[in-house]
Amino acid sequence: MRKIVIAMAMSMLCLCAMAQQAIWGVPQFKSPEVNADKTVTFRFVAPGAKEVKVTGDFLPVEKVKTPSGEYEAPGSALLTKDDKGMWTFTTSVLSPELYSYSFIVDGLKTTDPTNVFVIRDTGTLTNIFLVDGGHADLYKINNVPHGTVSKVWYNSPSLGMNRRLTVYTPAGYNDGKKAYPVFYLLHGMGGDENAWTELGRAAQILDNLIAQGKAEPMIVVMTNGNAALEAAPGEGSTGFTPPTILLPKTMDGSFEASFPEIVRFVDSNYRTKADKSHRAIAGLSMGGFHSLHISKEYPDMFDYVGMFSAVIMPDKGVASPVYDNMEQKLARQFSKAPKLYWIAIGDKDFLYKANVDYRKLLDGKGYKYVYRESPDGHIWKNWRIYLSEFVPKLFR
Amino acid sequence: MRKIVIAMAMSMLCLCAMAQQAIWGVPQFKSPEVNADKTVTFRFVAPGAKEVKVTGDFLPVEKVKTPSGEYEAPGSALLTKDDKGMWTFTTSVLSPELYSYSFIVDGLKTTDPTNVFVIRDTGTLTNIFLVDGGHADLYKINNVPHGTVSKVWYNSPSLGMNRRLTVYTPAGYNDGKKAYPVFYLLHGMGGDENAWTELGRAAQILDNLIAQGKAEPMIVVMTNGNAALEAAPGEGSTGFTPPTILLPKTMDGSFEASFPEIVRFVDSNYRTKADKSHRAIAGLSMGGFHSLHISKEYPDMFDYVGMFSAVIMPDKGVASPVYDNMEQKLARQFSKAPKLYWIAIGDKDFLYKANVDYRKLLDGKGYKYVYRESPDGHIWKNWRIYLSEFVPKLFR
Repeated sequence: MRKIVIAMAMSMLCLCAMAQQAIWGVPQFKSPEVNADKTVTFRFVAPGAKEVKVTGDFLPVEKVKTPSGEYEAPGSALLTKDDKGMWTFTTSVLSPELYSYSFIVDGLKTTDPTNVFVIRDTGTLTNIFLVDGGHADLYKINNVPHGTVSKVWYNSPSLGMNRRLTVYTPAGYNDGKKAYPVFYLLHGMGGDENAWTELGRAAQILDNLIAQGKAEPMIVVMTNGNAALEAAPGEGSTGFTPPTILLPKTMDGSFEASFPEIVRFVDSNYRTKADKSHRAIAGLSMGGFHSLHISKEYPDMFDYVGMFSAVIMPDKGVASPVYDNMEQKLARQFSKAPKLYWIAIGDKDFLYKANVDYRKLLDGKGYKYVYRESPDGHIWKNWRIYLSEFVPKLFR
Repeated sequence: MRKIVIAMAMSMLCLCAMAQQAIWGVPQFKSPEVNADKTVTFRFVAPGAKEVKVTGDFLPVEKVKTPSGEYEAPGSALLTKDDKGMWTFTTSVLSPELYSYSFIVDGLKTTDPTNVFVIRDTGTLTNIFLVDGGHADLYKINNVPHGTVSKVWYNSPSLGMNRRLTVYTPAGYNDGKKAYPVFYLLHGMGGDENAWTELGRAAQILDNLIAQGKAEPMIVVMTNGNAALEAAPGEGSTGFTPPTILLPKTMDGSFEASFPEIVRFVDSNYRTKADKSHRAIAGLSMGGFHSLHISKEYPDMFDYVGMFSAVIMPDKGVASPVYDNMEQKLARQFSKAPKLYWIAIGDKDFLYKANVDYRKLLDGKGYKYVYRESPDGHIWKNWRIYLSEFVPKLFR
């Protein structure tokens, strides 16, 4: 059998460089390696390269100048080469967080060949690693009861297609007959029904908060807010179509108008507590915009509303009944006193001023909301933190 | 709002090179592009590179010599550079299939930065593309009713941990009260509970065969056969641990012995037809070995058994009651006349002879089985084809 194992391993070698290294005695190495002191070491073997850099969100941002103005991008750091062609860089001590990075080899961006853990953000794949401790422990898969994450298709008559959802049911859902509250969790522009579980670590955050007794067991439904699409890139009938940010029908009212179809589907396919006091809706960026407009359009549907770094106002050029009479609809919504209307944004977010203006509008009318301001800008780090803080406030 | 959209897009640019290209007017290009004549064009921008190659399973294999012998690896093809630094290669006409590839830039293997579609095979990420038509149409997400794919955790007392499963429930499962037959589908060495849905396109194959009326609606349970692990790499409490092929407790009898725990979990958590005539088990390579030994160990559990490129005999050095008295147990299993015992292998598979020997053993005893021989070796192309052929034979 040892022979068979070796033969099998050999035959898989064509596909598996790591095993090759293990078997042929090439020294194995780790990249990235999170060291005991929470510095992180990156390694890349490229004897012929002239320059190897690492770029990622753990490095200070750099200003990038473009014809259309200046913007901030993750900085980079140079690796140094040893006499065997191994390039290395060790960071300073990093605070707990889920980080992403890429290598830049002689000017070309590439994934880390020794790290298979990647996440896609719209059209880019980046490697990830986790520095644990503090709030980042909520992003780990701990040894606690785990909920089920399902990819489920529902029919949308108003959008004329079957569409894909990600549904989290909490640990214990299958063991009993209990009904659960439902939290609808919406992605931003360029995202899809996979974003919150992949970039947002939603299943881990829910598992851990529920296990710690800090959140009620709940169903979480993660929708696809791109009303022209069935599903995330590669998951619908258009096949392996490259993702893009600027899609049609993302903020034209059609997703918002169709939302009751999703709620009906969930209420008829899951054991839900099907009333306003057991429903929450929240989203990031465009998903915050969707949450704002869905919750005011259907004021008897959600008692908990969360807007994470939200876009606020619809484009004046877009004609949709959903966006008509916004102030009247807000008046109606707040007359029905939602239990929680939660607005969170980073102090460096490009939507900061839009949120200041929106809070002024709410303040002027005396509408009750809770405000949370964090450091940093329009980034997933903030949205994971907001999710971790919002979920414990629901349904209790 | 246009301003907001552009500002949002700009802020996402740090993460999204494609949008950057679209917005800053850099010419966009597709890679890979499946052309109308089913040739495929690869493109890679690297003005400073000296040599760019593409390697993938659509190219003729090459012999690679190593200190331990010769083996076959996917071949490579040179791209040619134009005056703008764009490298290009167009294949000959490709037959329908799901293919994988990587670029090799000045000797370094890298993913295609314009293609976010990747699959992990043990420790390697490769890009994928699909040439449709023929049997490969079963691998597409067609506009048919879709089943649900769930990541579910079950408790294994015998292995002492909670463990992860992938469960496919067919379209319609949630609409009624009907009970379904169950097909247990097992991965090979280096694989896990994600392998059959990611590399094997199992959900698409099932959706399409069921929609075409060629297969019975069924539940498919994809297990993790690495008994030392809770879950696929990155999905268990060990965090982002690099995958390896050679794991402890993969073929030592412990997974096979624990299998009734999985069947009990499925029968108590899903609406199943909980009897032998409504249960199938099949697997590839190590999963074929597991299927062989589980089905003979529990001869009243499965009426349908599939062995795809299976390892046959246990290592003589491994002591497990599961592997004792193999011939007696086979005699008992075949005395109970399983409805289908299906053996499939490629004529270039390194396990071909082991399968010839096993068929001789079965022939010598007069045990009934069905044999399917295909071209090619120990590769996913064959396993997807075997799955597509095996599923229509079940439960009818």
